[in-house]
Amino acid sequence: MINAALDELNFNDEGLMPAIAINDLNDAVLMVAWINEEAFVQSLKTGFAHYFSRSRQRLWQKGESSGHNQTIKSIHLDCDGDVLTWRVVQSGGIACHTGRATCFYRQLIDGAWVDTAPVLKDPAEMYPE
Amino acid sequence: MINAALDELNFNDEGLMPAIAINDLNDAVLMVAWINEEAFVQSLKTGFAHYFSRSRQRLWQKGESSGHNQTIKSIHLDCDGDVLTWRVVQSGGIACHTGRATCFYRQLIDGAWVDTAPVLKDPAEMYPE
Repeated sequence: MINAALDELNFNDEGLMPAIAINDLNDAVLMVAWINEEAFVQSLKTGFAHYFSRSRQRLWQKGESSGHNQTIKSIHLDCDGDVLTWRVVQSGGIACHTGRATCFYRQLIDGAWVDTAPVLKDPAEMYPE
Repeated sequence: MINAALDELNFNDEGLMPAIAINDLNDAVLMVAWINEEAFVQSLKTGFAHYFSRSRQRLWQKGESSGHNQTIKSIHLDCDGDVLTWRVVQSGGIACHTGRATCFYRQLIDGAWVDTAPVLKDPAEMYPE
């Protein structure tokens, strides 16, 4: 069954595609990160969103450091099969490493990017050394 | 002012970044496409979403063929500055070239991708020869 699902995914030349995490509770776009085949399979098997870090060149589970994992409620694929969305329950209500609910917290207002979402948790607490 | 806004955008090695169009009326994710600097500037100047086609290697305005343009209501940037969302009013309520409201019309159900959104308009009518 996982193989049949994989057949429709069109990864790029690097074997990656963007995955958009959407808050299942309020429809907010939380973050965008890359997935590869392994990240997709692990996400299906575990029910938790996994991504592939290009900078670290490895699979990671969202929340593995911060505890703010994402429980997947549903998965959706676009017409070209090269972008995926998953609707998630975001643990702690914090998706961004800056401690905000969403990574898309900057809004263009009068030509400047303005922070529009509060910091809910000190990042130092999220990623203790 | 546009230059100041551009300063925060981190385009990739190809000069591109993904832009996610969100329906301003119901928060649905409509589509994802690429923008370059010119697409961003044209979108700001005109108020209509513009993208850059990698296959055709040119700027395009969403709806230039189908008439289903996107009026931008607000623009949001993520923490890394490498993905953008814009909330839009989708002309005709159809964002997908398949004639559906959204490009993300396939949902993974019991291991298979299932169409979950109706075709609202025949694509042949959207793109007459």
